[in-house]
Amino acid sequence: MALIVQKYGGTSVKDLDRIKAVAERIRTTYEAGNQVVVVVSARSGVTNRLIADAQALHPHPDEREMDMLLSVGEQETIALTTIALHSLGIPAVSRTGGQAGIFTDGFHTKARIVDIRGGDLQEQLDSGKVVIVAGFQGANSLGHTTTLGRGGSDLSAIALAAALKADLCQIYTDVDGVYTADPRIVSSARKLQVVSYEEMLELASLGSKVMQSRSVEFANKYQVQFEVRSSYNNNPGTIVKAESTLEDVVVRGVACDKNQTKVVVNDLPDQPGAAAKVFKCLADAQVNVDMIVQNIGRDGVANLTFTVPSDDAYRAENAVTEFLKEIGSGRVSVADRIAKVSVVGVGMRSHSGVAAHMFTALAESGINIQLISTSEIKISVAINIEHADEAVRVIHDAFELNKDASERSSF
Amino acid sequence: MALIVQKYGGTSVKDLDRIKAVAERIRTTYEAGNQVVVVVSARSGVTNRLIADAQALHPHPDEREMDMLLSVGEQETIALTTIALHSLGIPAVSRTGGQAGIFTDGFHTKARIVDIRGGDLQEQLDSGKVVIVAGFQGANSLGHTTTLGRGGSDLSAIALAAALKADLCQIYTDVDGVYTADPRIVSSARKLQVVSYEEMLELASLGSKVMQSRSVEFANKYQVQFEVRSSYNNNPGTIVKAESTLEDVVVRGVACDKNQTKVVVNDLPDQPGAAAKVFKCLADAQVNVDMIVQNIGRDGVANLTFTVPSDDAYRAENAVTEFLKEIGSGRVSVADRIAKVSVVGVGMRSHSGVAAHMFTALAESGINIQLISTSEIKISVAINIEHADEAVRVIHDAFELNKDASERSSF
Repeated sequence: MALIVQKYGGTSVKDLDRIKAVAERIRTTYEAGNQVVVVVSARSGVTNRLIADAQALHPHPDEREMDMLLSVGEQETIALTTIALHSLGIPAVSRTGGQAGIFTDGFHTKARIVDIRGGDLQEQLDSGKVVIVAGFQGANSLGHTTTLGRGGSDLSAIALAAALKADLCQIYTDVDGVYTADPRIVSSARKLQVVSYEEMLELASLGSKVMQSRSVEFANKYQVQFEVRSSYNNNPGTIVKAESTLEDVVVRGVACDKNQTKVVVNDLPDQPGAAAKVFKCLADAQVNVDMIVQNIGRDGVANLTFTVPSDDAYRAENAVTEFLKEIGSGRVSVADRIAKVSVVGVGMRSHSGVAAHMFTALAESGINIQLISTSEIKISVAINIEHADEAVRVIHDAFELNKDASERSSF
Repeated sequence: MALIVQKYGGTSVKDLDRIKAVAERIRTTYEAGNQVVVVVSARSGVTNRLIADAQALHPHPDEREMDMLLSVGEQETIALTTIALHSLGIPAVSRTGGQAGIFTDGFHTKARIVDIRGGDLQEQLDSGKVVIVAGFQGANSLGHTTTLGRGGSDLSAIALAAALKADLCQIYTDVDGVYTADPRIVSSARKLQVVSYEEMLELASLGSKVMQSRSVEFANKYQVQFEVRSSYNNNPGTIVKAESTLEDVVVRGVACDKNQTKVVVNDLPDQPGAAAKVFKCLADAQVNVDMIVQNIGRDGVANLTFTVPSDDAYRAENAVTEFLKEIGSGRVSVADRIAKVSVVGVGMRSHSGVAAHMFTALAESGINIQLISTSEIKISVAINIEHADEAVRVIHDAFELNKDASERSSF
């Protein structure tokens, strides 16, 4: 008998038919002899409707009251899912986040989990019941409901899996798993059987929107192995687990982020600390800077190029403009939107030549690289956004990601 | 500075505009220097939608899960009402029933209040905040949410008024107060300034649907004076309070219940206990019997006539049919639907002649009385349902209820 934590997102429980389908899936797991804890989100649309209601009353609704309001979405789903299980003859009981012993700090709307005691979940499981837990929510030290912010239901599931020492944690969503590249761009993209936490984090931060980073970080910290899979079919998904247990693959996948814009600062005085001050003023303006290149130009001036999320481009430009006024030199301009294309793989730590292979493939296709940044397990290039999809395909081919790892000729 | 508890029902908070109107009303009370606790119901329609969802999944949804589900309606309203107050610059905070210290037994969907500690409400009030409390709900000894059944939000308000020793408890609803008769039937009906708990109970049980009996009983038990008034205007409502503090009026009002059906049992053996057994079998079938008349017929048989709520008539007939089969004699038949018209007033305790005056008025209008029942503060007659409205008008005129008590010529 295994203890399995399953999580179903908003689209998986969006209407009564989908809730019935989820109940059937839970039944299959339960009747196979497993103990089952299920974390559910609010029905899709419910949370947005509640936010709209609140904002119609106040432009910046109080955060404690938003938690009081938004937590009803999950509360509705746990009750309905439990009732759907009863109609299949499966004993089940619902628990709010607080009742499931998910204790958080007091930062309403973005609370952090401080302790997971599991409430009476083990007791309920041992008595033969399926337990349906409200995702996205916990309780603070006063017992008041808090919510965990975006992606909070994934976090609830992984936290409960850790607390209950679950044998398996399944994140059911509307995608099949994690792919070597976006299948809409690369038709030969393959679903990955496994990825490491680190790779998953890089893929998430590179625009592969399967899960929020914080849930993956939490899983990494507590070494909770989980599977991302679809609630619409029975295909195996992608297992996310520790690097040490992975097969030896250099490049795991190719990711693409089309939401970056290049900002150029020209004629910055080439003196110590000038660049640092630029980034300080961007940090003060809460702009996340990503890729950075600095060139020393003629006449003792420097040119600085960096990328920011496109939504932040003009905020970045304004902040830098103010700073340049103060120091009395330099010009800043928002340049083109770019695409950031990246290869990710923990195997890069011990393999050289990955960057050269990637750059060669792009060069042979006539795609110009504007910026480069690297980490231990990732190489990213900024390119003209019009070549983004082609670049992903070229790189996917160059590393033979369409083939099983054992059949690849290099890397 | 007074402490005022206000309760707003589902129609009073049915949409965002109505919630804003409620917030304005609360502001007026708050800015007049009062401490204000507000109990709100679910937005009208929300509870019914949730019940429909649950019943689409299961014909008899589990009661604990129904409480988990239905309590979201009020939780939504308290958050939105609190946010609406914030937008008016009024400090406010929301509390669930459990957080407001409303403790109940464990009978989900129809829990009884066992203790009211008020949570931290007094502390919040003393810090200058309006407190918005979810009606209809409490928490059991495990801290799990329970609901109080029909009319539960009125009960929450009156219970909190008792616990906090409130100076005033206002029940805002979609009617103006309690009238001497239904104003849709009697155009000269007057709004009552005051009624006693006992009169209110009789009026409630006689089809004047302003409030559920249990809330009035609770108010009577804890001597909580309250006012029933409209959330759509600023008219004073009706004060409900202890009899001892009322002005001396014999007849307070006329009520009419059109939802009764007459059942006749003929040829029952005229022997001790026969009638008792009939009512025992009706009680076993959970039929509430109201007015009863027994006649001894010829040949040692008795005829029994009684009224039951119309929805229960055929259940009553079936139960009695079974019983008569067992004893081998008697016939039962469901007769006409009747109207039960009643005069109510605590002053009847010390005045005679009320019944005679009532019967005379009906006789002069040619309205035949089929059954009579009386209590200390009430006289009821069953009449042909077609004469119901006329009977109410005739009686209202006969007791001059259109006039101020001091101007009446008799009673």
